Amino acid sequence: MSMPMSTGKLIGVGVGPGDPELMTLKAMRALGEADVIAYFAKAGNASHSRGIAARHLRAAVVELPLFYPVTTELPTSSDDYRDAIRGFYDGAAATIADYLDAGRLVAVICEGDPLFYGSYMHLHARLAPRYRTDIVAGVTGISGCWSAAGLPIAQGDDVFTVLPATLPEAELERRLAEADAAVVMKVGRHLPKLRRALTRSGRLPRALYVERGTMAEEKMIPLAAKLDDEAPYFAVVLVPGWERRP
Amino acid sequence: MSMPMSTGKLIGVGVGPGDPELMTLKAMRALGEADVIAYFAKAGNASHSRGIAARHLRAAVVELPLFYPVTTELPTSSDDYRDAIRGFYDGAAATIADYLDAGRLVAVICEGDPLFYGSYMHLHARLAPRYRTDIVAGVTGISGCWSAAGLPIAQGDDVFTVLPATLPEAELERRLAEADAAVVMKVGRHLPKLRRALTRSGRLPRALYVERGTMAEEKMIPLAAKLDDEAPYFAVVLVPGWERRP
Repeated sequence: MSMPMSTGKLIGVGVGPGDPELMTLKAMRALGEADVIAYFAKAGNASHSRGIAARHLRAAVVELPLFYPVTTELPTSSDDYRDAIRGFYDGAAATIADYLDAGRLVAVICEGDPLFYGSYMHLHARLAPRYRTDIVAGVTGISGCWSAAGLPIAQGDDVFTVLPATLPEAELERRLAEADAAVVMKVGRHLPKLRRALTRSGRLPRALYVERGTMAEEKMIPLAAKLDDEAPYFAVVLVPGWERRP
Repeated sequence: MSMPMSTGKLIGVGVGPGDPELMTLKAMRALGEADVIAYFAKAGNASHSRGIAARHLRAAVVELPLFYPVTTELPTSSDDYRDAIRGFYDGAAATIADYLDAGRLVAVICEGDPLFYGSYMHLHARLAPRYRTDIVAGVTGISGCWSAAGLPIAQGDDVFTVLPATLPEAELERRLAEADAAVVMKVGRHLPKLRRALTRSGRLPRALYVERGTMAEEKMIPLAAKLDDEAPYFAVVLVPGWERRP
């Protein structure tokens, strides 16, 4: 019997916000060394993270796509969602464990940073107690957005907060008023509510709406100038801090 | 007379948290193309950001070190500090403007991400209205810390907050209690106060103390197990969220 430490290794590889050039040298090396490359995707869609990393994959590498059973069709608070997604992560972890038991190096490609709002965390939590793991930090999607906008986000003693747009309206308003700088994620159908919370917290004038920062389809517009309420799930709103500049 | 757009360009280049392999491909390219490389440093010290980027600098590049006139000797709220630091950034921006007027590509090397609590922002605010600029997003220092620790920091609908340890104790306590996940920066001499705020907010048991994440001198220890109050200015404390795991 081999000891646990002689078996394979799991690596969460952050590949950054979208522009393939925003991958790190370490991510490139990890993808080049891996025996197996796993990535998440919506069923029926190409994997976005695989697309970012594509040019760095070896021709002979084993690919393991992991298709979400549900994405936004069910509320994340419902039992049906929880059961489906828990079973999915359990199954994905078991499949990866088979490769790790066989001594393979398995790299999971993660958009942005693996441990910052990433699906990889569900695999890590299941496998890290039993296997060697490593994390390759990545440029987050939100860094990509404020960098693409050239928008200084936080400085000095600013309090910086990341808020999901799913929060109740009053809580969004209160937290926006209390943060010096904020990023609101998962905007989607919550845009009208978010717009009201930004208006009442006095933060609308500086708010910037961004879709697909650093990607070819990048869009950005001051939120006050955006006249419709259409927004994809992954759109973000940036509220820069740093109002006291020396 | 040449038009403004035919003059030089300023690039804020994020070089990541410390491990030179956590630089992006885009940062490497920007450093290789630059005519002038500028970086901040404490007077009498080697520049940490230059050290991260050293292997990617051309031998013939012009180097422009920018030495802070003060760092932690004066409170940042004092008039003396503000006057000194404002004069310093004005002077640095004027020096860089001379290179930009001469048509040069000037890259400012930034630890972490240029627009996330970075000194580069002071140059950007002064020069972006008059010159072409570009930002190369980088892996933040705090991503480097939680990745080195293998610590999933935030997931799903978590509220994530970055707090400076300089905040008053009661405010630290309240904000720590209200965030699902938090990172406290600039720990230094504020550690005893921070420890009390973490204890009273119930967050001490999960808090992890990290110095120099991803660097050779990296240190990390659960804060509850750290028996002394010694901490450098740049130490951080991570409080992971994600307590409801499907």
